[in-house]
Amino acid sequence: MPKLKPEELETRRREIIDAARACFLRAGFHRTTTDEICREANITPGGLYHYFGSKEELIAAVIERSAQNAVDRMRDLIEESMDAESAFRQVSGFFSEAMSDPDMDNSTRLEMEIWVEGMKNERLMEKSQRAWAMRQKWLEALVRRGIEDGIYDPEVVEPRALASLLIAIYLGLRFGRLMGQDFDLQGAIRSMFMMHAGRLQAR
Amino acid sequence: MPKLKPEELETRRREIIDAARACFLRAGFHRTTTDEICREANITPGGLYHYFGSKEELIAAVIERSAQNAVDRMRDLIEESMDAESAFRQVSGFFSEAMSDPDMDNSTRLEMEIWVEGMKNERLMEKSQRAWAMRQKWLEALVRRGIEDGIYDPEVVEPRALASLLIAIYLGLRFGRLMGQDFDLQGAIRSMFMMHAGRLQAR
Repeated sequence: MPKLKPEELETRRREIIDAARACFLRAGFHRTTTDEICREANITPGGLYHYFGSKEELIAAVIERSAQNAVDRMRDLIEESMDAESAFRQVSGFFSEAMSDPDMDNSTRLEMEIWVEGMKNERLMEKSQRAWAMRQKWLEALVRRGIEDGIYDPEVVEPRALASLLIAIYLGLRFGRLMGQDFDLQGAIRSMFMMHAGRLQAR
Repeated sequence: MPKLKPEELETRRREIIDAARACFLRAGFHRTTTDEICREANITPGGLYHYFGSKEELIAAVIERSAQNAVDRMRDLIEESMDAESAFRQVSGFFSEAMSDPDMDNSTRLEMEIWVEGMKNERLMEKSQRAWAMRQKWLEALVRRGIEDGIYDPEVVEPRALASLLIAIYLGLRFGRLMGQDFDLQGAIRSMFMMHAGRLQAR
């Protein structure tokens, strides 16, 4: 092993995580071998082992990094926004964009595979739960800001509750995509924005 | 095989499907053996084979029957209702009730297992897609009735789009339940009804 500085180690670690993620997205968690990850990351099995002791540690790191990426991305969008109104617009845009990501279906399949794996593996389940809780906490803060800025009715909107619903919708739309032609993803997204804006009812 | 009348065959077939479903819910699709299903259904392997050629055929029948049960149940609720308003109330009640079913988490886990399996098995994926399309079609008819009865704004509400969103929310809430303590299921359901009623925004 060549001696690397801490920041070089960290960079290499991230490259390996990204390589593993690419492999998992392509072939799923179970069908990906350590050899494939080594090839993708351009590292020897011994080198890989220095960073991650098992495929399970790698998948845990992939889960964590995906959640961290999503949260970082959302935070950037919000910090660029002047007020809650434009922050909401930014987040809506991010949402629509994420939904049309060509990698989305593979990422949903991987997510499901991880959850099924998590039924047998408590540590992995906890990791996955924590990653979703991270996203949810973040949405909760956004909802709270919406209340403070007078967008949401404070008598009606409970931040944790609404954040839970928004996470559920995000998950559900992703799973819905896999249901094939009958599911109208773009329409469902439009309906969600209309429903959120309170415009479904006849007046 | 004793000679059975067609309706007896059908009853026996359903009993086997219910027994298989109970096994799958308990232990998952993969870990359930044919022997366990035979024991639960009180039938010999030869007898079982007369009805279902493989575990895959059985899971396909379980998927179909679950969707049919849900749709039948919703239809009954609606036929008992005088108008769209009370039909909506009935369906909302059914929804909340389904969400607090103690079997729900096992059923969600089974659903995920089926989808993961479906990635490798096209026939199973199609079966599962068709079962969800059935539920969606039915919600679509309900939304259409809501438009006709003047509950929804016909300029805004697209039946297939809104039905897709409702299916996504149903799926997402079920998956959310598995995310543990941070996810507020009851709050998410309350938020959904508030959002649907257009009551989130400050006035």
